Amino acid sequence: MMTFAAVDVIRTKRDRGILSDEQIDWVVAAYTRGEVADEQMSALAMAILLNGMTAAEIARWTAAMIASGERLDLSAVPRPTVDKHSTGGVGDKITLPLTPLVAACGAAVPQLSGRGLGHTGGTLDKLETIPGFRTGLTNAEFVAQLSDVGAAICAAGEGLAPADRKLYALRDVTGTVEAIPLIASSIMSKKIAEGTSALILDVKYGSGAFMRDPADARELARTMVELGKAHGVTTVALLTDMEAPLGAAVGNAIEVEESVEVLQGGGPKDVVALTLALAREMLDAVGLTEVDPAAALRDGRAMDAWRALVRAQGGDPDAPLAQAPEREEVRAERDGFVEAMDAYAFGVAAWRLGAGRARKEDPVSASAGVLLHRKPGDAVKQGDVLFELRAEDAGRIPGALEALESATTISPAEPARRPLISERIA
Amino acid sequence: MMTFAAVDVIRTKRDRGILSDEQIDWVVAAYTRGEVADEQMSALAMAILLNGMTAAEIARWTAAMIASGERLDLSAVPRPTVDKHSTGGVGDKITLPLTPLVAACGAAVPQLSGRGLGHTGGTLDKLETIPGFRTGLTNAEFVAQLSDVGAAICAAGEGLAPADRKLYALRDVTGTVEAIPLIASSIMSKKIAEGTSALILDVKYGSGAFMRDPADARELARTMVELGKAHGVTTVALLTDMEAPLGAAVGNAIEVEESVEVLQGGGPKDVVALTLALAREMLDAVGLTEVDPAAALRDGRAMDAWRALVRAQGGDPDAPLAQAPEREEVRAERDGFVEAMDAYAFGVAAWRLGAGRARKEDPVSASAGVLLHRKPGDAVKQGDVLFELRAEDAGRIPGALEALESATTISPAEPARRPLISERIA
Repeated sequence: MMTFAAVDVIRTKRDRGILSDEQIDWVVAAYTRGEVADEQMSALAMAILLNGMTAAEIARWTAAMIASGERLDLSAVPRPTVDKHSTGGVGDKITLPLTPLVAACGAAVPQLSGRGLGHTGGTLDKLETIPGFRTGLTNAEFVAQLSDVGAAICAAGEGLAPADRKLYALRDVTGTVEAIPLIASSIMSKKIAEGTSALILDVKYGSGAFMRDPADARELARTMVELGKAHGVTTVALLTDMEAPLGAAVGNAIEVEESVEVLQGGGPKDVVALTLALAREMLDAVGLTEVDPAAALRDGRAMDAWRALVRAQGGDPDAPLAQAPEREEVRAERDGFVEAMDAYAFGVAAWRLGAGRARKEDPVSASAGVLLHRKPGDAVKQGDVLFELRAEDAGRIPGALEALESATTISPAEPARRPLISERIA
Repeated sequence: MMTFAAVDVIRTKRDRGILSDEQIDWVVAAYTRGEVADEQMSALAMAILLNGMTAAEIARWTAAMIASGERLDLSAVPRPTVDKHSTGGVGDKITLPLTPLVAACGAAVPQLSGRGLGHTGGTLDKLETIPGFRTGLTNAEFVAQLSDVGAAICAAGEGLAPADRKLYALRDVTGTVEAIPLIASSIMSKKIAEGTSALILDVKYGSGAFMRDPADARELARTMVELGKAHGVTTVALLTDMEAPLGAAVGNAIEVEESVEVLQGGGPKDVVALTLALAREMLDAVGLTEVDPAAALRDGRAMDAWRALVRAQGGDPDAPLAQAPEREEVRAERDGFVEAMDAYAFGVAAWRLGAGRARKEDPVSASAGVLLHRKPGDAVKQGDVLFELRAEDAGRIPGALEALESATTISPAEPARRPLISERIA
């Protein structure tokens, strides 16, 4: 491999040049080895954020991140593999019902997930509220469980895309998170290294999403779909609305409870609809076009797969989950229709109640969170409960209430419904 | 002082916002204390480079850098104080004759200088070729020598603008050197902290200068003049040409020898002209408008001041300087006029011969360098010596010759002379 001076690579991007394949290969590998210093990579990340990257640069950068570590071989799994990734939102527990549902329909779902940071929750934090559940699996355990159960949800191992692990932590503290080339290559390098043959992306936009603007979400989705295809992974993206929280529960254990309701054939309409839409895309992507996921929800097969998944990872699917002792209800001040419930505000409130973390080494509360009794479009009467705060510690409630002060809008007329899925990019 | 999250300060500049006074004060102080990490400051520096700063931001940033350390008090010095700063060029030894000359004319010159890095030389490296010369003075020694001799040339102490010291080293490795707000604040924070009452800036443009484009040099000069005035320092800038090396010598000891020639009333015309022009500005800036620096060169007073300065700093002004054993002449291939001698190429050649350093801890050769026998505008005959390379080690000569391969242009017609000083900004 050729060797470069880091400062020359930085200058190239700083001066709006195009990085060569050799520069990209070198800088990603040398950063992973510690030869390019954090302060050099952060300057380069800022130059990428402000000056952009071409599609070819993003593809090479992603390939270099994949090449920084191992790529899992799932060829021993006797089912087609398909994964889902969401860019994150408030109340987004879709991975929990979706993964066993798709496994119940005949595919294998290799779900490598993350923890929450900031106002969006983390799948692993939610699962860890189930007594005994282990989110750390070895590669061998992961592959074996995919073969036996058809699904596994665990933390990515240290060996997958170590360049991304290091760069992600750096971007978080240097104001360089919001760069589409870096977001797309971060997500796709992990998913491609994980070895899935197909991938469905849930790219969210709106108040509670990472991307507020649908145009940014569309650009990110297109970039990721191209990256997946270039690496031989069938990739489809749905653009979905994140103006209001997804479902009724925003927290950890309460989102597991809501997911189990969905797997039992109930649950909030939006969670069910998005779960089924994503399951349809996942099954289609691996040629299981004839299988009906709605039937698998109704007849208990999805629930069986959930129980098998939880047990395989050491959890007890029948154990009661933690319940928060401190509760506070917020009621409607007038009659009307709920026009908006600002997802970002509810995310911040759940975070302040203890469901999220400020630093990645912080613990999270299992039981804290917010339960929505009404959703946008619902009719309310003055005095109806709009939502309910839950915490382990009563001292956390005032701060959460403050975040929610103007989060809910009630209007006299019934508002137009926002479409949950606005676009499909393939 | 208010406290901020570093990432919010970075985001403000990243998103083309204006940093508040409080943000600037905090980030500079917290970086100096080590609370803002190098990788955060380098991301901020890249955002400043790409998105710029307003005049008010630059002024505040400079004030914060000054406030990060001590400000010298030169009020005990019984003469008006005036300093000169050059943005650096190839063969730029002007500080050596200029400092004693201005002292001989009645002002005190508090010269805090640097070492060379890259293709431009460093004043301290040149002075250290004089046997015994000490470039490290305490603040007390510095003030005492200014009172006794009227001039001192030494390294800046650790206590002056420590924020700049740290940031300068960071910018060097992160591709963030070339930002006018950061260059201007770096230079001016040190000069203002040094305590001088007046400052003349020699801002160079052209091949051998830091700024190749006169427009960039003009913007930097204007920015620095405004910063000086805002801090009560009389500041004037001259924009000067750096397309060809200044004088005939490019190196360390050979530049000292050329400087002594100037102090003895001889020396190359361009060095004498620039020395006298800068001396005139320095003397005018402190009200010594009636003193004639040309007379002080002619009658030996400047030379006496040089000898006093060298002796005061432990050096022997009569000691012979190191002479390079290895020499190689390059001759003209045809008759004509020298049209150009590319300053950058000569700087690189001197650096490759051993006169400069690649890393700040590297030693430099005292005797290595290049001696120009002809300068742009001179007539030459085929076979005349154009320049001569000098090195301690013959192995360094081929690399230097390579750098100079197309550095000299000979044309049949006499070229137009480039003006040495193109603009005065006050």
